[in-house]
Amino acid sequence: MRDAGAHVRVGDLDETALLARVVPLMPTRALLGPGDDAALVAAPDGRVVATTDVLVEHRDFRRDWSSGADVGWKAVAQNVADVAAMGGRCTGLLIGLSVPTDLPVAWVEDFARGVAAACAHLDAVVVGGDLSAASEVVVSVTALGDLGGRAPVLRSGARAGDVVAVAGVLGRSAAGLRVLQRGGSRSSAEEDLVGAHRRPRPPVAAGPAAALAGATALMDVSDGLLRDAGRIAAASAVTVELTTAGALGEWARDLEQRLGRERGHGVALVLTGGEDHALLGCFPPDAVLPVPFAPVGVVAATSPHGVLVDGRTWAGATGWDHFAR
Amino acid sequence: MRDAGAHVRVGDLDETALLARVVPLMPTRALLGPGDDAALVAAPDGRVVATTDVLVEHRDFRRDWSSGADVGWKAVAQNVADVAAMGGRCTGLLIGLSVPTDLPVAWVEDFARGVAAACAHLDAVVVGGDLSAASEVVVSVTALGDLGGRAPVLRSGARAGDVVAVAGVLGRSAAGLRVLQRGGSRSSAEEDLVGAHRRPRPPVAAGPAAALAGATALMDVSDGLLRDAGRIAAASAVTVELTTAGALGEWARDLEQRLGRERGHGVALVLTGGEDHALLGCFPPDAVLPVPFAPVGVVAATSPHGVLVDGRTWAGATGWDHFAR
Repeated sequence: MRDAGAHVRVGDLDETALLARVVPLMPTRALLGPGDDAALVAAPDGRVVATTDVLVEHRDFRRDWSSGADVGWKAVAQNVADVAAMGGRCTGLLIGLSVPTDLPVAWVEDFARGVAAACAHLDAVVVGGDLSAASEVVVSVTALGDLGGRAPVLRSGARAGDVVAVAGVLGRSAAGLRVLQRGGSRSSAEEDLVGAHRRPRPPVAAGPAAALAGATALMDVSDGLLRDAGRIAAASAVTVELTTAGALGEWARDLEQRLGRERGHGVALVLTGGEDHALLGCFPPDAVLPVPFAPVGVVAATSPHGVLVDGRTWAGATGWDHFAR
Repeated sequence: MRDAGAHVRVGDLDETALLARVVPLMPTRALLGPGDDAALVAAPDGRVVATTDVLVEHRDFRRDWSSGADVGWKAVAQNVADVAAMGGRCTGLLIGLSVPTDLPVAWVEDFARGVAAACAHLDAVVVGGDLSAASEVVVSVTALGDLGGRAPVLRSGARAGDVVAVAGVLGRSAAGLRVLQRGGSRSSAEEDLVGAHRRPRPPVAAGPAAALAGATALMDVSDGLLRDAGRIAAASAVTVELTTAGALGEWARDLEQRLGRERGHGVALVLTGGEDHALLGCFPPDAVLPVPFAPVGVVAATSPHGVLVDGRTWAGATGWDHFAR
């Protein structure tokens, strides 16, 4: 084993030594674990919400664009957002991390600190995990959650007349990715967007709040508003009619000002940009929208079921596909 | 999209089309899911057991030695074994699968069939998952479980005087791996070992049975008996004294007969071979060992804490390290 300085690689340590460096950096709090064959997590209402997402280097992140801490943050944030999207709160995370043996140990430590920072921000803890070697960094996170006795809020419950609302801001992550792709120097306004791409901040408390407010449908906007609203439309057999007159338009104008681009581009980012992990909800017309939900449209029974923007079908691309060429 | 024949690659389909082929092949049964942002799984006793393991191509399996179905089987088996090792029964699996875009779709379908076969054998179901692209196949499985109101059986409860026992058979997976590494034609006796390597069969019902029988410590033997018994010894501050006079010796002799090798090699395989996913338990001296546990030693208070084989320290290598060079 070489000296424990900045140039130590993962392959210089055995698994036990590496875990001894990394585990203490993360918040671990559960009935039991990590350390035994499995963790034990409270499931107060007799059911457990469970979701898993995998992030792969070169596909979901680039190590020259995101630090280890950014990757750890994002992996936690998007999974906790999925629990919130059911109306639940996160009760524990299991983190599988596969890394190349020539990766600096400092990167793994940085990853753990990013996990810890996201957990602190999102009120989550790590209850288990696994560490192994691979050709590229692969992060797989499973998030567990509790519904507090409430029914889960599905994608399939939207009804004609519902108000469509978004908690969080859309388009910023995609805009930040464009700034990174462009390269060169960045204004502070652009730096904010890059930050939104690296460390999305899902409004997780809005999930249980939406459930309490009577939300009929709820989901995490991970693949872009149009695509994800289309999923609610399909599952609920309704049409989601979005309007750019309110919050969507404001977010688009903010992006255009930050990017200094031509009018019209911001709307496309807001409608199709993924990975902001805002929450998209449908609420009965008489519901009081919980903070920070902003209305962005209405649900209609018109057929064919789908998504309209200001009364028309959107003509451009609609989102992200993991296997698109 | 090309024709849906044997030569279709993952990258020829979009994510939705690929999922539509794969998901129906797997047993999915839960309160809810897959299909929404998260699954909902029953947690009858108000707690949930949770564990995660990652399998990486080239490290944990080779596609020329194991079929997609073998990999799916193994990923399920080793995670369900971890739930059993707490004394629990599996209530749901979440499966993250990352695959190269040039991988045949048929491999992914075969993987799903192997998951289904293991689930049928081990009484498990799939409740969620994620599918993404990567440079090599990476499988991350999270298993959830229920303890039926019992206390979890930890590694730390072994006491001097306990009987040490194993449910399952040891050394067969490692022996099968050696047969694969050697190459060439295989006898039917060797083929059995290869089968044990490709499709381990953890005795999962023995987990809850051990808990009911009063097991003081329990764990899954994934990294070899010596290494894993050492973990119980360390966690419980005891010495595990193994004897090769009984079941361990019988298993060793069976391996030697199958492999046609010199005397003595079989014991090393039984003591250090990993991935059989047998269960290692410690029981009070007056406990009735549940089927199929076989006694393999006793727990002593002698110091330094560790593992002895027939009264002596084992001189050879002790197991598997993911980062060993």
